[in-house]
Amino acid sequence: MKHTPFRISPGSVVAFQGELGAFSHHAVRKIFGLKIKPFHCLAFEEVFEAVTQKKAELAVIPIENTLAGSIHKNFDLLARHSLEVIGETSLRVEHNLIAHPGVRLRDIRQIYSHPAALEQCARLLRRLKSVEKISFYDTAGSVKFVRDRGLRQAAAIASEDAARIYGMSIVRRGIEDEPENYTRFLALARRGQFPRGGRKTSIVFGLKNEPGVLFKALSVFALRNIDLTKIESRPIRGKPWEYLFYLDLQSDIRSRECLNALRHLRELAPYMKILGSYPTF
Amino acid sequence: MKHTPFRISPGSVVAFQGELGAFSHHAVRKIFGLKIKPFHCLAFEEVFEAVTQKKAELAVIPIENTLAGSIHKNFDLLARHSLEVIGETSLRVEHNLIAHPGVRLRDIRQIYSHPAALEQCARLLRRLKSVEKISFYDTAGSVKFVRDRGLRQAAAIASEDAARIYGMSIVRRGIEDEPENYTRFLALARRGQFPRGGRKTSIVFGLKNEPGVLFKALSVFALRNIDLTKIESRPIRGKPWEYLFYLDLQSDIRSRECLNALRHLRELAPYMKILGSYPTF
Repeated sequence: MKHTPFRISPGSVVAFQGELGAFSHHAVRKIFGLKIKPFHCLAFEEVFEAVTQKKAELAVIPIENTLAGSIHKNFDLLARHSLEVIGETSLRVEHNLIAHPGVRLRDIRQIYSHPAALEQCARLLRRLKSVEKISFYDTAGSVKFVRDRGLRQAAAIASEDAARIYGMSIVRRGIEDEPENYTRFLALARRGQFPRGGRKTSIVFGLKNEPGVLFKALSVFALRNIDLTKIESRPIRGKPWEYLFYLDLQSDIRSRECLNALRHLRELAPYMKILGSYPTF
Repeated sequence: MKHTPFRISPGSVVAFQGELGAFSHHAVRKIFGLKIKPFHCLAFEEVFEAVTQKKAELAVIPIENTLAGSIHKNFDLLARHSLEVIGETSLRVEHNLIAHPGVRLRDIRQIYSHPAALEQCARLLRRLKSVEKISFYDTAGSVKFVRDRGLRQAAAIASEDAARIYGMSIVRRGIEDEPENYTRFLALARRGQFPRGGRKTSIVFGLKNEPGVLFKALSVFALRNIDLTKIESRPIRGKPWEYLFYLDLQSDIRSRECLNALRHLRELAPYMKILGSYPTF
C-alpha cells in the first residue's frame, strides 16, 4: 500500500461516516495508514462539519459506486462546504455474511444490513426464503448490533474488516451478485493545508441557461486534449431545471493546459469552484 | 387542462407507483384526464412490468425533482425495459399536514410521511420538537395509514388530493421549506402504440472509453443548434467507471435536424436507444 505523500502527524484525526469497520474506514486506512485516529460519524454532514470545525484534520467520503452510481448527497456537500479534495482511492466491495462464531447458515432467521448491501446480495437472499431481511443504517453497524445484542439466530452483511473488528465469524464469503463492485472515495482537508496537484482535478460549475452552453464548457477541455473521467449534474435549489455540473479531469492543476482550460471555462461559467487537484492511492 | 392528443379509450388502465392520491396519481390525471382506471403499484419495477405484461396500457413515472434531482431508478428502468416515452408533464409539489377532521396542530404527537417529504418540510418539523417523525414508503400511503388505524394523535404529510381521497383534513397547508419544488413525470406505453413526435426527444447511449468522446457526442447536437435540457449519467453494471448517458433534446424526431443528429450520434455511440419523442402537457 502506498500512503499519502503528505506529512500527516501520527494521531491525526480522520472523520468518516459509519461504524469502525465500515468500507469508509477501510478507505481511511488505505489512504492514511494505520497511525491515524478514526473519528466515526453518523451522517455525511457530520463528516464535513467535523473537518470544518477542526474536530478532525481530515475526512474520507464515498463519492461513487460502480453499481449504485454517484452518492449525490456528497456532491451537494462538496459544493456547499469549502473543503478541498486532497486524494482519491477505490476499493472493491466484498460482502460477507457475518454471525457469532459457531452459528451456521441454517441457524439464521434474520439478516441485517444497509439496504444497498441487501440489494447487492439479492441472489443469496432470494434463496434464503424464510429469512427476514432487515434494513440497517450501516453495514459495519449491523455487525455491531448483532454482536451487542447477542443475536445467535441473526447475521449481518458487511466487510471482512467488520467481522474482525467485532470478533465475529464469516459464514459465507463474497456473497455479492456482481463481483465488479467498486466504491471510489475522496480524502478531504481544509483548504490550503496541503499542496495542490496530482493526476486528477475536480471542479464544480454553473452555466447560463443558453443553447449549446454545456457543449461550449466541455470544449475548453477537448480543445486541450484533457480527458474527462466523470460528469455529474445536480439541481440548483430555488432554480427549477437548472443544474450544477461536476467534472473530474485527468489533468494536474499545475500544468499549463489545465490552468488555461480553467481560465477559459471561467469566461463561460458564472460560477466555478476548484474542488481539488490530487493524487490517486 | 390540456389532455393527451392520443386516442385513449375511456377505462384504459394507467399504472403508477404509490397509493391513490400520490403525486404520480395527480400526474396521471393531468396527462390522461379522469376517465382512465388508475392501477397503483408498490414499486417502480412493478409499474414497468404492468405495461410490458399488458396488465396496464399506460404508465406515469416521476423522473426528476427540482430539489432531490434525478430519480435514478427510473432512468435505469427506462434503459432496461423497452417502453416508449409518449409525453411529459411537471407538477408543483405542495406538502400539507393532514389529520383526522377536528385534530389540531397541538394534538399531534407523530408525523408520518415519505423521507423526502419529511426532509422537504424540515423547517416546520424542527419547530415541532416533541413530535416524532416516522418514515413511510409513500406520502399518500401515510394518510391512508393514519386514517385506517384511527390515529387521532398523528398526522401525515401529503398532497391536497390525498386528503380529499381519504376524507381527511388539512391542518397546515403548503408546509414545504422551498416553494420552488417541482417534479417532472413521463408517460409510458409499449413501443409503437402511439405516433412519435413532439417538443422533446429523449435518448440513452453508451460511448467508447476514449478521450473527448462525450464532447464529440454533444457536438452532433450543438452543430445543429439542438438544445439539451438535461444530461444524466448512470454506471454500467459489470463495467466499472463506464457510463450510460441520458439526454433530453429540445427537438422533434420528425425534423430533419433531429434525424441527422441521431444518425451522426450512431457513428460515435456503440449503443443508442431512442426512449421517445413526445409532447409536453
